[in-house]
Amino acid sequence: MKRTEISDLGEFGIINQINSKFKNTKPSTVMGIGDDAAVTSTSKELILSSSDMLIEGIHFDLSYTPLKHLGYKLVMVNLSDILSMNCYPSQILVNIAISNKFSVEAVDELYEGIKFACDEYDIDLIGGDTTSSLSGLIISCTAIGYTDKGIVSYRKNARPDDIICVSGDLGRAFLGLLILQREKNNFIKDPNNQPDLSNYKNLVEKQLRPKARKDIIDFFRSNDIIPNCMIDISDGLSSELLHISNSSNLGFKIFEDKLPIKDDVFSASQELDINYLDAILNGGEEYELLFSIPVDKFESVNLDKIDISPLGHFTNDKRKLLVEKSGKNREIKSKGWNHF
Amino acid sequence: MKRTEISDLGEFGIINQINSKFKNTKPSTVMGIGDDAAVTSTSKELILSSSDMLIEGIHFDLSYTPLKHLGYKLVMVNLSDILSMNCYPSQILVNIAISNKFSVEAVDELYEGIKFACDEYDIDLIGGDTTSSLSGLIISCTAIGYTDKGIVSYRKNARPDDIICVSGDLGRAFLGLLILQREKNNFIKDPNNQPDLSNYKNLVEKQLRPKARKDIIDFFRSNDIIPNCMIDISDGLSSELLHISNSSNLGFKIFEDKLPIKDDVFSASQELDINYLDAILNGGEEYELLFSIPVDKFESVNLDKIDISPLGHFTNDKRKLLVEKSGKNREIKSKGWNHF
Repeated sequence: MKRTEISDLGEFGIINQINSKFKNTKPSTVMGIGDDAAVTSTSKELILSSSDMLIEGIHFDLSYTPLKHLGYKLVMVNLSDILSMNCYPSQILVNIAISNKFSVEAVDELYEGIKFACDEYDIDLIGGDTTSSLSGLIISCTAIGYTDKGIVSYRKNARPDDIICVSGDLGRAFLGLLILQREKNNFIKDPNNQPDLSNYKNLVEKQLRPKARKDIIDFFRSNDIIPNCMIDISDGLSSELLHISNSSNLGFKIFEDKLPIKDDVFSASQELDINYLDAILNGGEEYELLFSIPVDKFESVNLDKIDISPLGHFTNDKRKLLVEKSGKNREIKSKGWNHF
Repeated sequence: MKRTEISDLGEFGIINQINSKFKNTKPSTVMGIGDDAAVTSTSKELILSSSDMLIEGIHFDLSYTPLKHLGYKLVMVNLSDILSMNCYPSQILVNIAISNKFSVEAVDELYEGIKFACDEYDIDLIGGDTTSSLSGLIISCTAIGYTDKGIVSYRKNARPDDIICVSGDLGRAFLGLLILQREKNNFIKDPNNQPDLSNYKNLVEKQLRPKARKDIIDFFRSNDIIPNCMIDISDGLSSELLHISNSSNLGFKIFEDKLPIKDDVFSASQELDINYLDAILNGGEEYELLFSIPVDKFESVNLDKIDISPLGHFTNDKRKLLVEKSGKNREIKSKGWNHF
């Protein structure tokens, strides 16, 4: 029997392979696989649902991840998928599997973080499954939201000339992870090396405790904005831009000097000897929102009080370009995350 | 810091502890944790959602579980939770985490089973997450269904004198598991011992490839039955009866000679030297439906063409009793499954 290695296909290859097997047939299924959240319909409203799984040793390392932060992050990751459809999440279901290396207090810690997130974002935890594992911690979450028809922002509806915007800043979550890994290695080499993270506070915080950008959706609502397309940045800016442009059958042009980069991203990149653009373009787990709005709408909105940055625009020309500070065009390719 | 072992609390203890932390506040949440599926409401319809996780080494052993069957079973387990609310499931979201010991073909096999189940039960797979694990296979599923208000069968609404009924037969799934484990051990001891499962076909099939009882819901619809309460048997008859009677604040009386027991359950119990009543009362993973209906309704329905058995009735008296063939009363206690 033929054996193809999973690594040969990669994550997206496998997902595509799975998708190709399933065709939606129910009238109540408006959008299945292929966006951040699934959309299902009742007679009057749309229901959005999304599910994600976090695995110890793959998505998190408990040697530097407090369980409370992990619980909070699990919820954020899932809420972010509903928000990135331009919809408010309402409920979550959480499954956890734990080995006997965890105590009840540890489970408490995890759910403290989940509860904190639920309270902060006005979410009900409405179900799930609790079971054991042979080793390590496995958590999965499904988020559900409801919205009126006509307001959902899919990946496929970007328009040529739309202004591409991103919330917040980029690169911190990825660099925060590298810093945590470095400090862990230093500690393993010599337990007297107590990690001092005070210089990297915002990097580490973005990695361990990202925020789902509900405030951006609030801003859209109060400014009558419905983005033509939207996605959250879980796999990196490049990867998400390619998702949207492929789904919408467009190209894009973004400008290096427009990328929202904080000083600590420059300094940490230098310290870690990596190209800061790599951190910005390919760093995952930012959970910022990437979206596009028509030029006239963009020009009519006051962005002074919200951290939204225009990066460039979508084009009929299919090329995917980053215009460097020097003026040189550079083709954007996806590196994304590949856990396999 | 105090450390309580998870095993000290047990599964239900932990679930209760988690539940006590969360209070539903959204108008759209009709029923959160505490039943087989969560109920959320849009303006006109109820949406039901339920999520479950299966872990290699805990819930399944790939040495005797074909991946295709496993995918099918994952869906059944989740559909069963929606059906047990007296509602038809419509969509599922599936998360999988796989280690590199699995090939693409193996993943294909798993999804073949998922697809087979979706086709058979008219379900759309609408989302999920695919990622890697350090060891073994982890799969979780969320099922969603829609229904009119007023038709949902909760655990809490059993009434005194209601006839307690169960679909199908009991004990096979549990005995099937014991047979598979025995054959595996024989094979490990001596690889020349090729397992011959031909005498245990229905036991093994019920374990590896259970059916969610959609046909029972069809029967309810065509006979204008809305069960006062319903639950699916995942943890064993005793455990589920106690769930309902505790939720409904009632006792019950069931009769040993009414229990639906097939000949192969008697013979396999004898062969394995276990009490067949233990298999019937405490064997999990049956995915049969346990429900109650008022006496007059029960008497008006023709059960000739459907495998539904009356077991006894609920009582105002809080005692939970099995009336043995001898006439002796025996108190029912939950053993349930305890993975920890």
